Amino acid sequence: MPFRLQIEATRGAARAGKLITPHGEVETPVFMPVGTLASVKAVSQDTLEELGVEILLSNTYHLFLRPGVETVRRMGGLHRFMSWDRAILTDSGGFQVFSLTDLRKVNEEGVAFRSHLDGSPHFLSPEKAMEAQIGLGADVIMAFDECTEYPADAARARASMELTVRWAARCKNYFEEHKHEVPWSSHQPSAISRQEKQVLRSAQDNNRLYDNRGEAHSQTQSLFGIVQGGMDPELRRESAERTIDIGFPGYAIGGLSVGEPRELTRDIVLSTLDHLPADQPRYLMGVGTPEEIAQYAQSGVDMMDCVLPTRAARHGFLFTSEGKVSIKQARYAQDESALDPACDCRVCQRYSRAYLRHLYASNELLAQVLNTVHNLHFYLATMRTVRAWIRAGHAPAAGASQM
Amino acid sequence: MPFRLQIEATRGAARAGKLITPHGEVETPVFMPVGTLASVKAVSQDTLEELGVEILLSNTYHLFLRPGVETVRRMGGLHRFMSWDRAILTDSGGFQVFSLTDLRKVNEEGVAFRSHLDGSPHFLSPEKAMEAQIGLGADVIMAFDECTEYPADAARARASMELTVRWAARCKNYFEEHKHEVPWSSHQPSAISRQEKQVLRSAQDNNRLYDNRGEAHSQTQSLFGIVQGGMDPELRRESAERTIDIGFPGYAIGGLSVGEPRELTRDIVLSTLDHLPADQPRYLMGVGTPEEIAQYAQSGVDMMDCVLPTRAARHGFLFTSEGKVSIKQARYAQDESALDPACDCRVCQRYSRAYLRHLYASNELLAQVLNTVHNLHFYLATMRTVRAWIRAGHAPAAGASQM
Repeated sequence: MPFRLQIEATRGAARAGKLITPHGEVETPVFMPVGTLASVKAVSQDTLEELGVEILLSNTYHLFLRPGVETVRRMGGLHRFMSWDRAILTDSGGFQVFSLTDLRKVNEEGVAFRSHLDGSPHFLSPEKAMEAQIGLGADVIMAFDECTEYPADAARARASMELTVRWAARCKNYFEEHKHEVPWSSHQPSAISRQEKQVLRSAQDNNRLYDNRGEAHSQTQSLFGIVQGGMDPELRRESAERTIDIGFPGYAIGGLSVGEPRELTRDIVLSTLDHLPADQPRYLMGVGTPEEIAQYAQSGVDMMDCVLPTRAARHGFLFTSEGKVSIKQARYAQDESALDPACDCRVCQRYSRAYLRHLYASNELLAQVLNTVHNLHFYLATMRTVRAWIRAGHAPAAGASQM
Repeated sequence: MPFRLQIEATRGAARAGKLITPHGEVETPVFMPVGTLASVKAVSQDTLEELGVEILLSNTYHLFLRPGVETVRRMGGLHRFMSWDRAILTDSGGFQVFSLTDLRKVNEEGVAFRSHLDGSPHFLSPEKAMEAQIGLGADVIMAFDECTEYPADAARARASMELTVRWAARCKNYFEEHKHEVPWSSHQPSAISRQEKQVLRSAQDNNRLYDNRGEAHSQTQSLFGIVQGGMDPELRRESAERTIDIGFPGYAIGGLSVGEPRELTRDIVLSTLDHLPADQPRYLMGVGTPEEIAQYAQSGVDMMDCVLPTRAARHGFLFTSEGKVSIKQARYAQDESALDPACDCRVCQRYSRAYLRHLYASNELLAQVLNTVHNLHFYLATMRTVRAWIRAGHAPAAGASQM
């Protein structure tokens, strides 16, 4: 089955369904955990599967520097490299490069930058970013965009948006010419016999993977366009229309969470959503708290990612049904209750707040493992609740559910 | 069933059987992973169970400082605090205090020392160490000994050994008077209703635990004596005899791996084993490499512990059937093979050397998780092999197998 969003229920602007990818189906709206360097920090792939993660995000900029795209490509792409048979999305590196304020230089061709690791010089362009993402081989890849800084004046926001549109066209051109170079394409020789056996073995345990395995080899990646336009709804509309004119199988809203007030983020997201095709996936990049991801999903966003659950976990900040818990606090030192009595994750089922507090206060590695597992579970459970809420509404009219 | 070693097969000096504890049976000879601060670093209790760990070691000195014995005791003891229903052994703190060379002062009464964390002053004596270990509530606890430094002259080694013997008698006296104060004794009120429910729920999943649960409440801990005597076989013999005269349900060989040559360690272990009761557990403390633990098990040692597999893992040193692998080396950057092709652990079944090398080189937390899981599996598999080797020998004559 080709890549698509299969909408199965709607409620207001929200929709629930499945994203069909070369590496399995993904229930939407979906929260994608961030695995920057081909690993969701502190959590094994077994545990991610157990948590029900169906798609994760990895960062092209970081993988470009370590271990390098060529290494991953030779190992058969990210799926094989990290032994993850479910779906993956990579960003384009644009946002990360944008964050290197003092180390980057942008021109029409692309962005020259220095590595945050060793200061070594590198260059990314729409074509280079496509080449990198094809080599990494994620199921969904992103156009190379310029993330407009905040605040930006009208001229700067327009110029930046137009650059992103021109880059989007170059990305599509390069991608269309090279998309069959993805490491897991049937046009590529099979590289790794041991891991191949591994895939088949795990496939026997999991029909979902097996069913999709034959498909994977005859498919290619899907390239999403990114809407920019700063904080101007009119520019956002124009960016959406011109990106849609180029034509992509999905669209992202980028350039948010760059320092603007949360209300402004929300206004821009909602107004931009109105201009995105109803029958294609809509991906809001880099957002947000559990409340925010629930709200955006209810507003019609299909895909989201954020480092918040994993990063907060490593700093001892845990999301619970009773609010945020800072587990380092001494008040939990003898608290025998579960972190979140309403949570059915392995951490809340097994350990007390006192033990979690002890692990964190003692700087034990297990603190980071358990905290991350809980926070990811909380985010994934939040999205499960939203999906159930949507499905409890009305189903779309026959025929309208398929794009 | 009361605590005992049930010997089921012997081969030469080696013996295989079961250690019967208030928290389940432990197949011997056994390697005990070290969980210094009530956590085997980077590994969840679920994973330890999956690895087949039946007993782990925790350090009284470290728990004494963080989170404090009283906190653990109030939470129901170590088993409940860390949600581990299988057996636990705690050391006495003697070895750790001994390691604080510049921060300790020993006299007949005990050891005054300063915390390695904040320099705060503390005092441990035989009685204090017993009180702490009863509060922590491990199944097997250790007498408070003086670990003789290396090298030590004859007078010093004798004086130190005799101090340890006097302390052993004080430990036993205190323990016999206070052993019913263990938090999980039937004489203690049940403290934690949620965790109690948890124990019962997990017991339903695991008959082994359930079978032993009723027993646990009617039992107490078991206190082992420790043989010292430096590097003098004659002093070791005397230490063994005098400790046996005091009378313990098991005996440890301490004071080794303190800087002496490995051959000397081996000579002292072998000569000391000759003086320990054949029908009681023999515990060799803080040893060693996979080869060493296999050799000592074949020589009649029943229990061993060592930080080596877990600590080496965190530094990227991995034990394999083909020898030691330093996974940080660039030669593994594109090595698609399993870390140890002969290993059936989850890490070797799923990930390539290239991926493990990438995780380590990128300082990813998952490196420490996966490396530790593999090394522990390797140690546990080594002991399974030794047990099978012993059982492939001849069984003891009827009647001789029970103490």
